[in-house]
Amino acid sequence: MIKARVTVTLKNGVLDPQGKAIEGALSGLGFQGVGHVRQGKVFDIELEGTDRNAAEANLKDMCERLLANTVIENYTLALD
Amino acid sequence: MIKARVTVTLKNGVLDPQGKAIEGALSGLGFQGVGHVRQGKVFDIELEGTDRNAAEANLKDMCERLLANTVIENYTLALD
Repeated sequence: MIKARVTVTLKNGVLDPQGKAIEGALSGLGFQGVGHVRQGKVFDIELEGTDRNAAEANLKDMCERLLANTVIENYTLALD
Repeated sequence: MIKARVTVTLKNGVLDPQGKAIEGALSGLGFQGVGHVRQGKVFDIELEGTDRNAAEANLKDMCERLLANTVIENYTLALD
């Protein structure tokens, strides 16, 4: 069993209204010195087997086809 | 300027319908050997100043008050 964490973040230059809303909310709560905030997603995925190379290839494929919109998002993989 | 990444994930035992939907979608796309999938959130936050201890305390406070629902979610902090 391989455990992987996929992190999907917006590419630079892509507007992030959710991040902007969080910036505003943090200011509203009185937090000072908060600069840009950007929100992304993480997926913790369990994969059967022990072949890390196969798992990584598989995960890349999952990202390209489902987990990330590669037009506007980057993804990174981290295997346990 | 300090850059921080806050990762918010559901606690063990908390149902994750979104993760379940992704499991189903991956199976539907033909991916085999996919076990549990759980989805979480990441926040990339820029903070003014250079005091890492103050930044960490500040971020914890942000998590407790806004970014995470600590009844059902865990959070981890990573500073650049």
